[in-house]
Amino acid sequence: MRADIITIGDEILIGQITDTNSAYIARELNAAGIRIRRKFSIGDQKEAIIAALDESIGKTDAILFTGGLGPTNDDITKHTLNSYFASRLVRHQPTFDMLAAWFESRNRSFEPVNQSQADVPEVCTVMLNKLGTAPGMIFEKDGTFIFCMPGVPYEMEGLMQSGVLPFLRQKFALPPLAHHTVLTVGIPESTLMMQIKQWEDALPAGVKLAYLPSYGAVKLRLTAWEPGAYSEEELCQIARPLYGILGDAIFGTGDKTMEEVVFDLLRERGRRVSFAESCTGGFLAHRLTAIAGSSAVFNGSVVTYSYDAKTRELQVPAAVLEQHGAVSEPVVIQMAGAVKEKFDAHYGVATSGIAGPDGGTPDKPVGTVWIAVSSAEGTVARRFHFPGNRERNIRLTCLNAYNMLRRKILSES
Amino acid sequence: MRADIITIGDEILIGQITDTNSAYIARELNAAGIRIRRKFSIGDQKEAIIAALDESIGKTDAILFTGGLGPTNDDITKHTLNSYFASRLVRHQPTFDMLAAWFESRNRSFEPVNQSQADVPEVCTVMLNKLGTAPGMIFEKDGTFIFCMPGVPYEMEGLMQSGVLPFLRQKFALPPLAHHTVLTVGIPESTLMMQIKQWEDALPAGVKLAYLPSYGAVKLRLTAWEPGAYSEEELCQIARPLYGILGDAIFGTGDKTMEEVVFDLLRERGRRVSFAESCTGGFLAHRLTAIAGSSAVFNGSVVTYSYDAKTRELQVPAAVLEQHGAVSEPVVIQMAGAVKEKFDAHYGVATSGIAGPDGGTPDKPVGTVWIAVSSAEGTVARRFHFPGNRERNIRLTCLNAYNMLRRKILSES
Repeated sequence: MRADIITIGDEILIGQITDTNSAYIARELNAAGIRIRRKFSIGDQKEAIIAALDESIGKTDAILFTGGLGPTNDDITKHTLNSYFASRLVRHQPTFDMLAAWFESRNRSFEPVNQSQADVPEVCTVMLNKLGTAPGMIFEKDGTFIFCMPGVPYEMEGLMQSGVLPFLRQKFALPPLAHHTVLTVGIPESTLMMQIKQWEDALPAGVKLAYLPSYGAVKLRLTAWEPGAYSEEELCQIARPLYGILGDAIFGTGDKTMEEVVFDLLRERGRRVSFAESCTGGFLAHRLTAIAGSSAVFNGSVVTYSYDAKTRELQVPAAVLEQHGAVSEPVVIQMAGAVKEKFDAHYGVATSGIAGPDGGTPDKPVGTVWIAVSSAEGTVARRFHFPGNRERNIRLTCLNAYNMLRRKILSES
Repeated sequence: MRADIITIGDEILIGQITDTNSAYIARELNAAGIRIRRKFSIGDQKEAIIAALDESIGKTDAILFTGGLGPTNDDITKHTLNSYFASRLVRHQPTFDMLAAWFESRNRSFEPVNQSQADVPEVCTVMLNKLGTAPGMIFEKDGTFIFCMPGVPYEMEGLMQSGVLPFLRQKFALPPLAHHTVLTVGIPESTLMMQIKQWEDALPAGVKLAYLPSYGAVKLRLTAWEPGAYSEEELCQIARPLYGILGDAIFGTGDKTMEEVVFDLLRERGRRVSFAESCTGGFLAHRLTAIAGSSAVFNGSVVTYSYDAKTRELQVPAAVLEQHGAVSEPVVIQMAGAVKEKFDAHYGVATSGIAGPDGGTPDKPVGTVWIAVSSAEGTVARRFHFPGNRERNIRLTCLNAYNMLRRKILSES
């Protein structure tokens, strides 16, 4: 089974927003064993929507649209589909009642513009949208199912789970497409390729390898290209020799992030971490606390951006700051040790660096970063030179700080 | 002038990565006065790339490809284009020399797999890629220019600036497409629409309004749809009545984020802010420190996730925590005041809430958040009920915390 994803909105075509919806939809469809033929984004124009329908209907089993279902005048998807399918708008009473109750519960007046959101093309099957005001719709033509969802991400996600996926599972027998992903850190893509060439060349036909580099890490994704040819377990077996070749550079498998891997390690061991952040400015703490349940491994942390804050909060001696500068080994070592005590943690992680674009010197150019990890068993510190802009340097520092923490936890277990 | 954007990569079609490249390219092309006809994403398959070329060549002035130019076996874009244009690969000496020097400077051996990255189709014009190993390429067919760039975002961005945009400016006379965006916060899209309906109905022909909702904010984007019809200044004039209608709900214009607006307000006034974060877990500090130059307005901040951390770091009395719970007015008021003193700031901002998915109670369901902002002139605190999942609740808390800070700064100026 194959599907096209079409996202509608001028805001996507002018780059004002990044289209995260289509990535979510692709992920969910793939997990359900549905291959994506292609994804495309078009503007809020009747002609573009019609051309997209004409190009996809009959060539793919399903088309998933998002966007252009709001109440405002630039939202034209519903009216365009209504005329494309030569239908007429009729009131969908369950949606109308739900909206009426919603507005009443918030003491807001239920205006005609909101009421009209309950009007849908007569030929469609409605998917009730419990998280917003625009209902989802399903059409069918020439063997293609056409699904329409709002562009607001959490509404779209709700409709995927409550409407689209159950419908597809009912209509199609879906064999899962098997994937297995091995997560590596610290080896550039081309080096990695040479290291695993022999293994890659020996992969069975029907198993495809992709290198997915991002911010200092490379994911190696194996896909059983013909549905049902290899199970996930078999792909996992096929990947096993990589552990012998790459060793410690493999930090996990699947869709996990480095932070999630570290969170699991801490939780399993009943350990806590705290952060003393300078150049990362709160990003380390944010990435951990974005994980549900993080309070089990985290009491708190501190961002010390100025000399004064480093001295007062983390007892970095003013003389050390004067002599070595904030971006230096003795400073991060003191920060890591002090924050561990401050928040009663087992591990303290400290970062100090020059994220850029300003602040570099010949001696310490932009991208120079010191990271330290401290525990009762001792402290490790390392200097990095990252090549990026501010955002990239913050992300690379974060990845490497968590990786140093991961190695320290494993070395002490 | 019109362009198509095509991103290549199985990782996009299975949703393993979000395609941020096409948003960047769209933004840059729009700023240069180039309209995007459509964007699409296809897999790493020869047939898909050829079908995309066939569909776009002759129908659009430019096609911008990204992805599939790496050294590994799943990177097939260059070879596919080489055969599509019936060309042959030849060595591009400047790229070869640059790569040789790069490998030498890092004491890494310059292997054939890396050397082959300097081979390009003879018919193309090379764009030197100073930030990576895969050169950019320009082809021409039937009045369409075809640009190929690597998928690594910062390499692609470098080639857009050094190669693609200068080439397009030279080949085409580009009138800028005018945009003006007004940023609003706190008013739902449908309410906003009713409030500004009269103004919207009176917009001149050729000026289009789009509502771009995201995480509690709505951007109102005016576009002069015919290039050259209205200047940005004229659009700005057209938007002026919105200030009378929406007042304080407008927090800025253009592409700024709420944090950037607040950063500017603080910097202009020589003021500093600090954060005492519970449910936002470092996200407030991260968003501010992601801005270059933030050290002018920020000494540091603290994340206090446990009762103990709140008591020790911010002197929240244990009795108050026991009686009212961490998610309460007296707790955030104490946190905001204490963090302001702790980091010698003019403003202290505190958050405490239940981000979810667990931790809710009938009395304080998931999404309940208290925010306080403190200054020498007093403290304001407010309770919110956000409707989202963990990520959304963290983002909505962040937006509203910065908005409360913005209002407090403006009320004191």
